[in-house]
Amino acid sequence: MGTSFAGCPFGVVAHSHGKFRGLPQKMDLFGSHFHLHVETSRLNFYPSSVSTSTSKGLVSRLCSLPDTDDFFSEKVPTPILDLVENPIRLKNLSPNELKQLADEIRLELSYIMSKTQKSLKASLSAVELTVAIHHVFHAPVDKILWDVGEQTYAHKILTGRRPRMHTVRQKNGLSSLTSRSESEYDPFGAGHGCNSISAGLGMAIARDIKGKRERIVSVISNGTTMAGQLYEAMSNAGYLDSNMVVILNDSRHSLHPKIDEGPKTSISPLSSTLSRLQSSKSFRKFREVAKGVTKRIGKGMHEWAAKVDEFARGMIGPLGSTLFEELGLYYIGPVDGHNIEDLICVLREVASLDSMGPVLVHVITEENRGADNSQKKEISYKQQEDIAGSSDPNSLPSKFHSRTYSDCFVDALIAEAEKDKDIVTVHAGMHMEPSLQLFQERFPDKFFDVGMAEQHAVTFSAGLSCGGLKPFCIIPSAFLQRAYDQVVHDVDRQRIPVRFVISSAGLVGSDGPMQCGAFDITFMACLPNMIVMAPSNEEELAHMVATAAYIDDGPVCFRYPRGAVVGMDYSICCGIPIEIGKGKVLTEGKDVALLGYGAMVQNCLKAQTLLAKLGIEVTVADARFCKPLDIKLLRQLCRNHEFLITVEEGAIGGFGSHIAQFMSLDGQLDGRTKWRPIVLPDNYIEHASPTEQLALAGLTGHHIAATALSLLGRTREALLLMC
Amino acid sequence: MGTSFAGCPFGVVAHSHGKFRGLPQKMDLFGSHFHLHVETSRLNFYPSSVSTSTSKGLVSRLCSLPDTDDFFSEKVPTPILDLVENPIRLKNLSPNELKQLADEIRLELSYIMSKTQKSLKASLSAVELTVAIHHVFHAPVDKILWDVGEQTYAHKILTGRRPRMHTVRQKNGLSSLTSRSESEYDPFGAGHGCNSISAGLGMAIARDIKGKRERIVSVISNGTTMAGQLYEAMSNAGYLDSNMVVILNDSRHSLHPKIDEGPKTSISPLSSTLSRLQSSKSFRKFREVAKGVTKRIGKGMHEWAAKVDEFARGMIGPLGSTLFEELGLYYIGPVDGHNIEDLICVLREVASLDSMGPVLVHVITEENRGADNSQKKEISYKQQEDIAGSSDPNSLPSKFHSRTYSDCFVDALIAEAEKDKDIVTVHAGMHMEPSLQLFQERFPDKFFDVGMAEQHAVTFSAGLSCGGLKPFCIIPSAFLQRAYDQVVHDVDRQRIPVRFVISSAGLVGSDGPMQCGAFDITFMACLPNMIVMAPSNEEELAHMVATAAYIDDGPVCFRYPRGAVVGMDYSICCGIPIEIGKGKVLTEGKDVALLGYGAMVQNCLKAQTLLAKLGIEVTVADARFCKPLDIKLLRQLCRNHEFLITVEEGAIGGFGSHIAQFMSLDGQLDGRTKWRPIVLPDNYIEHASPTEQLALAGLTGHHIAATALSLLGRTREALLLMC
Repeated sequence: MGTSFAGCPFGVVAHSHGKFRGLPQKMDLFGSHFHLHVETSRLNFYPSSVSTSTSKGLVSRLCSLPDTDDFFSEKVPTPILDLVENPIRLKNLSPNELKQLADEIRLELSYIMSKTQKSLKASLSAVELTVAIHHVFHAPVDKILWDVGEQTYAHKILTGRRPRMHTVRQKNGLSSLTSRSESEYDPFGAGHGCNSISAGLGMAIARDIKGKRERIVSVISNGTTMAGQLYEAMSNAGYLDSNMVVILNDSRHSLHPKIDEGPKTSISPLSSTLSRLQSSKSFRKFREVAKGVTKRIGKGMHEWAAKVDEFARGMIGPLGSTLFEELGLYYIGPVDGHNIEDLICVLREVASLDSMGPVLVHVITEENRGADNSQKKEISYKQQEDIAGSSDPNSLPSKFHSRTYSDCFVDALIAEAEKDKDIVTVHAGMHMEPSLQLFQERFPDKFFDVGMAEQHAVTFSAGLSCGGLKPFCIIPSAFLQRAYDQVVHDVDRQRIPVRFVISSAGLVGSDGPMQCGAFDITFMACLPNMIVMAPSNEEELAHMVATAAYIDDGPVCFRYPRGAVVGMDYSICCGIPIEIGKGKVLTEGKDVALLGYGAMVQNCLKAQTLLAKLGIEVTVADARFCKPLDIKLLRQLCRNHEFLITVEEGAIGGFGSHIAQFMSLDGQLDGRTKWRPIVLPDNYIEHASPTEQLALAGLTGHHIAATALSLLGRTREALLLMC
Repeated sequence: MGTSFAGCPFGVVAHSHGKFRGLPQKMDLFGSHFHLHVETSRLNFYPSSVSTSTSKGLVSRLCSLPDTDDFFSEKVPTPILDLVENPIRLKNLSPNELKQLADEIRLELSYIMSKTQKSLKASLSAVELTVAIHHVFHAPVDKILWDVGEQTYAHKILTGRRPRMHTVRQKNGLSSLTSRSESEYDPFGAGHGCNSISAGLGMAIARDIKGKRERIVSVISNGTTMAGQLYEAMSNAGYLDSNMVVILNDSRHSLHPKIDEGPKTSISPLSSTLSRLQSSKSFRKFREVAKGVTKRIGKGMHEWAAKVDEFARGMIGPLGSTLFEELGLYYIGPVDGHNIEDLICVLREVASLDSMGPVLVHVITEENRGADNSQKKEISYKQQEDIAGSSDPNSLPSKFHSRTYSDCFVDALIAEAEKDKDIVTVHAGMHMEPSLQLFQERFPDKFFDVGMAEQHAVTFSAGLSCGGLKPFCIIPSAFLQRAYDQVVHDVDRQRIPVRFVISSAGLVGSDGPMQCGAFDITFMACLPNMIVMAPSNEEELAHMVATAAYIDDGPVCFRYPRGAVVGMDYSICCGIPIEIGKGKVLTEGKDVALLGYGAMVQNCLKAQTLLAKLGIEVTVADARFCKPLDIKLLRQLCRNHEFLITVEEGAIGGFGSHIAQFMSLDGQLDGRTKWRPIVLPDNYIEHASPTEQLALAGLTGHHIAATALSLLGRTREALLLMC
């Protein structure tokens, strides 16, 4: 007792978890000097020597964490935060204390950023908002939903996950998303963005049906305001008129991208007062009365009165407010997202409103709030980290940026676009890969980034194609799922030549299952008119870009993974169209045939090397096409080999299934050829390093070689290989 | 020469096609009496004796048409329409003549409706609009895009397809959609709704890049205004600011569903004048100037001036106008959609505007305009026609409504909901199956129809589930594609118990490829946590409803087809949960095993009957589950049979692929068992009767039996069976 906590927040947290559990709700622990004396005996809660064993459960979880000594030794004091191990602790903090708490969280986030080289900007912008929400609402009874994971780090810190914050995105560490399995304070998983209103509305309706009274708060970010689902959800929320609070955390005012060029919405004392006025009960009451009146008047008057009401609101709202009102949400704002007192005032009013339907609170925030200059400069650590394919999550990003598939793709695309003036590019998805900026700079008029509007992106591309251009539509595999119907009906069924570039195909390292591109081979290859291909290396990628540019009578798609390319030759950038449906044999052997699809061809080659050492002669072929299949190659492989193993970084139903179906109908499975498929396993692979994920998926060269050994009856060698 | 045309419009059209081709643009063929004397020698353009041969090309196309004598004999005269074989003919018609033309088209549509028992209400509402569009714009140079097929019948009549209108939705007949392959006047295929702005914007951008000048007109309907893609597209259109005209054909004013309860937007002479004012160049010019000024002022003033501008517009627009303005479209309206002069005036102004960005013209129409009372009563002929599974497209719908899978599903669901108060229902998609109304009437507070907002429907269901309810989320297979990402990330990845009811699975008869549910087995069964099942008859369907209600620890889906059920027993409605992953053997034989999935089990039984007559003993098994597979059953089938045929009404990558993967990994494909998959063929099957489609797909009992015979080496018998 009595030891200063400075420098050892960790011990405090670990300990205080037990110590303060029984504190009364009304607590006033600290004065204005923010000094505290609590027991801080360092309990070595996490062992400082890290074991890398893979045993399961809590032990392995703890063991896999890096040395906490290193992590926390330089940290500045965070006296209030140290006492908040769950959000109930916020209830009786004074406004000043809450401000101090926000500052401490920001410090903590900045510290985590500097240590882990992750960008937490979206969370920095939401610090005061998060504090205010947890001060006003009663999680976990009240449900707080977020629509992008990046916003939620302050929320995680305040909801018992502070000690593990530095493990975010690591194997067995915290998820970068909200996760129902991770915490009771996460009522829904934020994943692909724009789902929080839909899910929140479902919870609100369930609450009404069950006769409960908890509040539902859905936070949305300006990054997702172009996504169609948001409008579907808001429109339905307006229609169902159930009580819920939607908070727009707007750090870019990008509801109207054109306005971006002009000034941001200015947060003046005036607008702050107005937000308070709007949220006050008396004002709302007035509106409710007015609404009732207009409904009773009915007929012609109804519409007129509604219009007056609309303008009354509009006059004090900012540009954009009427959009939400049109959709049926009561608009309040803009509120300064860094003024805790304003936030609390507005949220408290909103929280106390009963039977008022959905409310939208427009909060304006700054992304770089509190970050120092050096941090402002860090842009894309996250991307750099994943592309290198490094297995050590604690290593600083390489200064020598490894050349990625994405880089090669953009080079090849630029080369094609130089030759063919009809080539245009459409991009959709949550984040744009940095390399695409090169294309944008080179052809600014032929580059269209539509953000999280994947459905539109696909049909828009179809329109561009109908207008005589050659669109390349670039969407990460996981986000292409959002436009599947448009791929089917607006492109494939009409045989419109759109070239789908499926990036982030397969496993994606620390982005985990949220952005994993597991299903694209399956859901694209079943489409009748689609040509489906995948390059095995950067050279093939360039050829496929050229092939896609060349094909002009129907749709085509190709996928490439995140991560570094195979070779070091920087000169390859101009491809030559390859023959449709033509694979190739890379090495020849008599014992086993490995038929790889896409990047997995490299792992087949690794397996071949391993097997060669054991005296096994292996044929490795690069299928190149999942559709149409290279029938000649397949028959040749079947004729010459007793064993055929297909390997792909995708779920069941894709490449291997197409092979099996052909072989079966061709009678090739009736004879002596034994086929084995290697696909992604039937589960979601959690975030880890790319190498770790590949091992978990059973897709390494060792796994492939072991499968071959098993087939050949050399089980013992197979086991040895996996040790 | 000199024969009156009355009663023989057909001969006129066929002939005039050649005769008037060289007419000068400025033509003034008819006076006010609308009488014309042209050659009308009836050329027997379509043979009156119908052959049912299936030879290909134009001959078969013509032969498959019904007797035109019957079709046209009772028709009332349509003198102006008879002369319009392409839209250029509309150019120099006077307003009165255009009105008369619209009346004639309405008569023709009513006539087709009465003859073919199809509902063309959406097209009836758009007759004047279509005439005005084709009068003002120059198709096919100008591109006219529609977002739902139902709106386009007047467009089809005016663009050279009048002689074949009565073949719509029949085998080899006209498509019920717009179709690029059908006509150069259809620049894009209307399919699932809400794609016309995205595609139109693509064409507008392509035009700008190519330096062309054609106009782009995208017509949207109020039925699609809740679809998210529309907002994505409008927002992007506002941002890109390319010239295009969006016309909202609003027959229900359902932008604000709540307002539906109140009056419709009233079309007064005042609003008509105002629309004209808004569309006039001077007014637009004023606004452009104002815009320029505000941009130059910048900063604080910028926003204020923009707001003034917004309200200036809002004051003369109706409720809802600001929504479009917020998204960046210049709003004009409302315009009376049945007043051709107003429509032409507004469209002409809009067409003449250059460099003005996207414009939205809000047109208010009446769906039942011009239809007599008997027609107003016809509600769901279309549904009735397809559900009966009748092969004769000309037969009147059966007065004795056959019991469908959908009916049985709703009965079973109501039975479950009576027992379990937590069961709620969410429906999304273009049309709601009529039987669902029963549930809605029984449990109005537990039924949520969100319309074309599939993405929202899925996440909303997930939210309901998190709130402690048991949602059944009912979406037709083809429309579930629109919510695939939400199924993956908001449900499956989080293991949230949502029960997906996939209706219209497989072929859908006259709705053709647009609503064909071909891909759902493939894209659902690859998801790690999803239980995927399909009932083989109505009894199994009831059991699966009970099973889905019972499963409460993860997601589950089951699919059922359109069409009539197998049995006649109306008493079955209360199911009993079945064991997860448990199939069953229906008949036992030693020669061949047929393993059916879903409704195809019935066709396997038909094949079994056929084969039994040839002395072949067949095992028929009902797999019930695609995931998890009944491994025990599979091993048993492999052990006891040399041949295993899997049958499903779905694309490659689904049930058969899961069977193949398991068999391969289990070594079952290495031995003596030969596996053959029967799946939907690798193409889109055009509209035809359900029986015709099934034959085209190769999924009839005869096809299955022939496959078995071929496998057994009895090729000649196989061929005989197919004759």
